[in-house]
Amino acid sequence: MNIILLSGGSGQRLWPLSNGVRSKQFIKIFQNEGGKPESMLTRVYRQIISADPEASVTVATSKKQVSSIINQLGDRVNICVEPCRRDTFPAICLAAAYLHDEQGVAEDSAVVICPVDPYVEDSYFEALKELGRMAEEGNADLSLLGIEPTYPSEKYGYIIPVSEDRVSRVNTFKEKPDAAAAEKYIAEGALWNGGVFAFRLGYLLQRAHELISFTDYRDLYARYADLEKISFDYAVAEREKEIQVLRYNGGWKDLGTWNTFAEAMEEPSLGRVILNETCENTNVVNELNIPILCMGCRNMVVAASSDGILVTDKEQSSYIKPFVEQMEQQVMYAEKSWGSFTVLDVQEDSLTIKIVLLPGHKLYYHSHDHRDEIWTVMSGRGRAVIDGAEQAVVPGDVISMPAGCRHMVSADTELKIIEVQLGENITVEDKHKYPL
Amino acid sequence: MNIILLSGGSGQRLWPLSNGVRSKQFIKIFQNEGGKPESMLTRVYRQIISADPEASVTVATSKKQVSSIINQLGDRVNICVEPCRRDTFPAICLAAAYLHDEQGVAEDSAVVICPVDPYVEDSYFEALKELGRMAEEGNADLSLLGIEPTYPSEKYGYIIPVSEDRVSRVNTFKEKPDAAAAEKYIAEGALWNGGVFAFRLGYLLQRAHELISFTDYRDLYARYADLEKISFDYAVAEREKEIQVLRYNGGWKDLGTWNTFAEAMEEPSLGRVILNETCENTNVVNELNIPILCMGCRNMVVAASSDGILVTDKEQSSYIKPFVEQMEQQVMYAEKSWGSFTVLDVQEDSLTIKIVLLPGHKLYYHSHDHRDEIWTVMSGRGRAVIDGAEQAVVPGDVISMPAGCRHMVSADTELKIIEVQLGENITVEDKHKYPL
Repeated sequence: MNIILLSGGSGQRLWPLSNGVRSKQFIKIFQNEGGKPESMLTRVYRQIISADPEASVTVATSKKQVSSIINQLGDRVNICVEPCRRDTFPAICLAAAYLHDEQGVAEDSAVVICPVDPYVEDSYFEALKELGRMAEEGNADLSLLGIEPTYPSEKYGYIIPVSEDRVSRVNTFKEKPDAAAAEKYIAEGALWNGGVFAFRLGYLLQRAHELISFTDYRDLYARYADLEKISFDYAVAEREKEIQVLRYNGGWKDLGTWNTFAEAMEEPSLGRVILNETCENTNVVNELNIPILCMGCRNMVVAASSDGILVTDKEQSSYIKPFVEQMEQQVMYAEKSWGSFTVLDVQEDSLTIKIVLLPGHKLYYHSHDHRDEIWTVMSGRGRAVIDGAEQAVVPGDVISMPAGCRHMVSADTELKIIEVQLGENITVEDKHKYPL
Repeated sequence: MNIILLSGGSGQRLWPLSNGVRSKQFIKIFQNEGGKPESMLTRVYRQIISADPEASVTVATSKKQVSSIINQLGDRVNICVEPCRRDTFPAICLAAAYLHDEQGVAEDSAVVICPVDPYVEDSYFEALKELGRMAEEGNADLSLLGIEPTYPSEKYGYIIPVSEDRVSRVNTFKEKPDAAAAEKYIAEGALWNGGVFAFRLGYLLQRAHELISFTDYRDLYARYADLEKISFDYAVAEREKEIQVLRYNGGWKDLGTWNTFAEAMEEPSLGRVILNETCENTNVVNELNIPILCMGCRNMVVAASSDGILVTDKEQSSYIKPFVEQMEQQVMYAEKSWGSFTVLDVQEDSLTIKIVLLPGHKLYYHSHDHRDEIWTVMSGRGRAVIDGAEQAVVPGDVISMPAGCRHMVSADTELKIIEVQLGENITVEDKHKYPL
């Protein structure tokens, strides 16, 4: 099976664990059978490989998620990077062109498109395999997975099939109806549209060329910024006559808000947390290294990270977005391809950061115009290059880099460094990179 | 008026804002009329001086509170330091001896004893003045302030007066009765015992010499560790025949738990806090520099400091103590006579701290046997002495101090320093002090 996982998300709804650089699919809130922490991404990948050990998985994503994907899955997946955000149709076209032109996938091969963040039973991926086979057989141009609704939700799109058979032609689509309409559709056999579909690669490329003028993957990549924002549903699904839907009635959850996200936690709390005996139906995730004590909390979610602290009634948690938007919070923690950084202290003219550099990784050679930096090595061993001169670094070493000084450091073993930045108006933009 | 403020408190009930080194009376949770933040201590001091500009205020306290008291009140108060904890009777005897032998207060002068943490109207201190006058007049050996009860509390001791007159002889005392008994006492005119009493200094010294063998203040101080732990109520009040009580019916709150403490907040929140419109009767205090977002919280208190995060139903908040006791949390923030320190990062073999040194203050000359330290100066100017050699320090300076190196730093302007400590088993005990 060729499967494309769409990995997007602005990360506001699960603040403070998600943020501008960390989307919800990377939060390690689950546990696998061995009790090891899992993110949505690693959980979905594990389930795919369990259903089809030969599956070829491509993650279609934006630049800023690449580091997190590599950190969590390494080179086990292909990554197709959108140069900028252009909604699902351009993203799927780019991924399709990537599979065809970069990975050599044949035009009559089936491709399954799936969001990266469904919280589902293993049987879901068996259904995806079947969907791929259905696409390959060619009885329809587009094959959708329809999720058996459990309540008349106003949040989802509905697929109205011709019949209630396990596999049926699609009659029409209904976008987010009100509860009464949803109830009526469900009585008539309607299914939720979970954004999963399969097609032959050649079919999608043909649609792509009809709507976008491009020659191949690299050409499409170069033109990407100029493409119109348009969803796959609107550009393809709603215009296509030859659509079939496969009914799926296993477990499926859309963990889009804290309320639903918390339901999927194996334990009521993660991290340093005490819940006293009067707490009920309360979930706490603590990424800070100070304890959280909860007493008498009912139906609540508490989440704490370097970015902030959320204390919310579960039902209210779905209204978080506008509040997070107004915060304009500096990113205090970020996972990077080379490790991570944590902002420890913010002053008017200085910023103190903890840098963790993974073995074999490095900070690239760079300088700053408007700030001095001082590294104090806490632990680990590595090598630094300062204005062209290489030196070994060990715990206790201090390196002062005035503005303009070119510097890099690489880690032989995991390297932990305290970096003090000194200057007025410290910004991430103040950086020049150099080859080394 | 000579007034002794008893400043004790282990700081568990208002965790995480109070801790082993910061008691609740130092938390700046109130506002004065000019909108400036006030602690219980500064509020009470301001109220005393407003009632009696000539009042001589002595704070009886333990060693670890001295820095906080000086930081908040400077040299406007006398401080009588208990060498160790020995309950209220020894503490009051020590303070009485201090007034007599160190401050030269005459034996026929009245002394008023008051806890440092009542949350009261200004009229309370007018009542204290009157209590002092009553003591001076000598109609009774002991004059108590009785607080008009507002409900049959099981938390307080009751004073049973002979009559319901404004000033009455005391019949007897009742310790923390159940609600039914309390109701009965109140119907008969009983008053809450708020721990406020006045006496002539000579009277108390006589009682002190009867129960404790000592010559003067310095002798009592030297013997202090050997004294029996005994409360003033038990040692004196319950045995004394000649007691009068002054009835006080103004505002009085015992802000001993988060529930009551929150009621006294001028605004629902302090610090970086967003409460959405569905929050009700919820108070939030945030001392961290990351935002707290509360949604749909009802009847709750949320408090965050470098020590931890509390999320509690208001009613449950009075049961906090055992949970805080089990935490054995490292102190992450402390106010010192010289400024403050904040623990920024804890690793196995290192600790990163932010030090703020106030102008004119210094860290004393010291060394460590088992850890290296590295200072990076973020802001301010001062002078350091490193192994006997003095040097100026300015922002960007780095000083490396291997184990054994003697070091100190003094601040000309407010000095902010990042200190990285490196070593195995870093402890506060690993410190040698030297004269300089």
